[in-house]
Amino acid sequence: MRIADLSTPCLVLDRAVLARNIDGMAAVAARQGVALRPHMKTAKSIDVARMALAAGARGITVSTLAEAAYFARHGLSDMLYAVGITPRKLDAVATLNAAGADVAVITDDPEAAEAIAAHPAPVRVLIEVDSGERRGGMTAADDRLLAVASRLGPRLAGVMTHAGHSYAGRTAADMADLAEQERATIVHAAERLRAAGHAVGIVSMGSSPTARHARNLDGVTEIRAGVYMFGDLFQAGIHTHGLDDIAMTVLASVIGRRPDEHRFLVDAGGMALSKDRSTAAGPVDWGFGRVLGVDGSDRFGGATVVSAYQEHGVVACGPGVVMPAVGELVRIEPNHTCMTAAAHERYHVVDGSDAVVAVWDRVNGW
Amino acid sequence: MRIADLSTPCLVLDRAVLARNIDGMAAVAARQGVALRPHMKTAKSIDVARMALAAGARGITVSTLAEAAYFARHGLSDMLYAVGITPRKLDAVATLNAAGADVAVITDDPEAAEAIAAHPAPVRVLIEVDSGERRGGMTAADDRLLAVASRLGPRLAGVMTHAGHSYAGRTAADMADLAEQERATIVHAAERLRAAGHAVGIVSMGSSPTARHARNLDGVTEIRAGVYMFGDLFQAGIHTHGLDDIAMTVLASVIGRRPDEHRFLVDAGGMALSKDRSTAAGPVDWGFGRVLGVDGSDRFGGATVVSAYQEHGVVACGPGVVMPAVGELVRIEPNHTCMTAAAHERYHVVDGSDAVVAVWDRVNGW
Repeated sequence: MRIADLSTPCLVLDRAVLARNIDGMAAVAARQGVALRPHMKTAKSIDVARMALAAGARGITVSTLAEAAYFARHGLSDMLYAVGITPRKLDAVATLNAAGADVAVITDDPEAAEAIAAHPAPVRVLIEVDSGERRGGMTAADDRLLAVASRLGPRLAGVMTHAGHSYAGRTAADMADLAEQERATIVHAAERLRAAGHAVGIVSMGSSPTARHARNLDGVTEIRAGVYMFGDLFQAGIHTHGLDDIAMTVLASVIGRRPDEHRFLVDAGGMALSKDRSTAAGPVDWGFGRVLGVDGSDRFGGATVVSAYQEHGVVACGPGVVMPAVGELVRIEPNHTCMTAAAHERYHVVDGSDAVVAVWDRVNGW
Repeated sequence: MRIADLSTPCLVLDRAVLARNIDGMAAVAARQGVALRPHMKTAKSIDVARMALAAGARGITVSTLAEAAYFARHGLSDMLYAVGITPRKLDAVATLNAAGADVAVITDDPEAAEAIAAHPAPVRVLIEVDSGERRGGMTAADDRLLAVASRLGPRLAGVMTHAGHSYAGRTAADMADLAEQERATIVHAAERLRAAGHAVGIVSMGSSPTARHARNLDGVTEIRAGVYMFGDLFQAGIHTHGLDDIAMTVLASVIGRRPDEHRFLVDAGGMALSKDRSTAAGPVDWGFGRVLGVDGSDRFGGATVVSAYQEHGVVACGPGVVMPAVGELVRIEPNHTCMTAAAHERYHVVDGSDAVVAVWDRVNGW
């Protein structure tokens, strides 16, 4: 099968770029002397997880219990479910762990910690610490840190944080500063807990940009990053990687033309691309995605998807571009690859030519 | 099973509200003397389609060939695939039709019309006309209208338009004016074609707001509308229905609390809610959704989801609200129900109590 044989819209994944991205982050972890626990929230694919593990990753991070169950079915054991646990979800984790998985959970809540400690099935727990994002977690200085640890008792396995606010950084120097804030925060939290007599084996941090740009990771035991594997236009804008490092594109067909307006329509709209507009706040606003020729060339003169209806994308071309025929294929680089990939059930894998060398599934939903 | 037994995040669909919405649009079509061909792009569910058909709908509209195949498998025949056809997709339509379906397609492109006419399998075609949205279709005055009709020959079954720009209307009077523009445009296109000797059986228009507010539909044979079945915050903002007419909500669990900031976290983020921000341009900006108690009450003082990460939603409450415990369930009304529903594989159907009376599947993807 070749790219030209695929039904549109669908995902095309370039294995060579993916492998390069995986190796790049593995080298970062090796250089910093920390383990890499890649976040599978982007790829949600056992084939991608296996590539990362083969490159040296130790365990994985997941964003849903559906991911945990899927990866467990495929034989993976060491996982961190990095979304605050609820008492009822603890039952689901216990079921997975009883069947052979080793899924650790996170919390920042004293009542939830009590429920975890009281649960009949032991589960490893990381306390979530806020390193500036102000989403989940308490600050390292918060007294609740010690309260949660005390309630967890021997179930406490470590601490974790995620500098999601790094997405507001713009330069490599910004990212290095944010990474240091993230590192210092989580190491401080670990030290406070150790000073209070708790064993803290895991000191976990990371986002793709801070993992990439950290000056040092002293005191950290592992980094979590996910979007680096596929990359996207937003991450390219904040220097996590280059524009040439985007491994996943949406293949779409031209379904209409408005030559007088230098515009055409494609069958990839808000469903196939997502409604994510993260690049609106970046150095280059790519609309709902950057539109290339099917061969990856800038065939349409810097074209972007300027409007995304449910199944229609409106592409604005540069002046002088020869309009494509209805049926011509294009490839669209996503703003935010995690969101874009989620609408699709599988990847069509290519590797240096237009031959589809594999089809890899994804685990969506919850 | 009761709502409290469901894993979160997931969809809850209120059958009584759905039935009321379906009956309301059926009454509009009956009053206007036109057929209703509901757009299944929102619900993507055979159970919902059957309710609409039982209420008098004649055929359905679909937004993907996956929908067409799904509804054909469930025995439905009369469908309009309302996204511009490509030559290769014509093969897929022909396959469905050979197996008993009767899927009509649309085009506005002379070359595509030639490919349709040359295809061995006859397929009914509607010409897409632009009534002001400037997405797909030519204007009714465009000479390409006659060129496309001539190329289609006997495969021409009618004309269609979609006043998607009605979403920019704000008052019922705006909507009535936009509906009249839509009606006049598509009737004019039909008359031009008839004057040139073409048979034009179907004159199809519609969006939920223009279908609802049209003063008359003289010359129109059918209306297409979809989002009215479930409703959403955006449609409530533009007077397609009331705030009490939203049939579908996202059930989520509280996963963290920030009482000092009157905020809490839920396990419904950009994935479960979508990144749609359409209400940002409406009379009330509902963020990424309106947050209610599990019983549908305004338990959190006008709360909305103010930030949506992949699996985290940040909920801002009114002052003085008693913070929920980790694990408490909430229900979130969506900005744009088509986008929100698409992340989920099924509906948990309730009908006037907290008992889940049915589980209905959806057809996602392409």
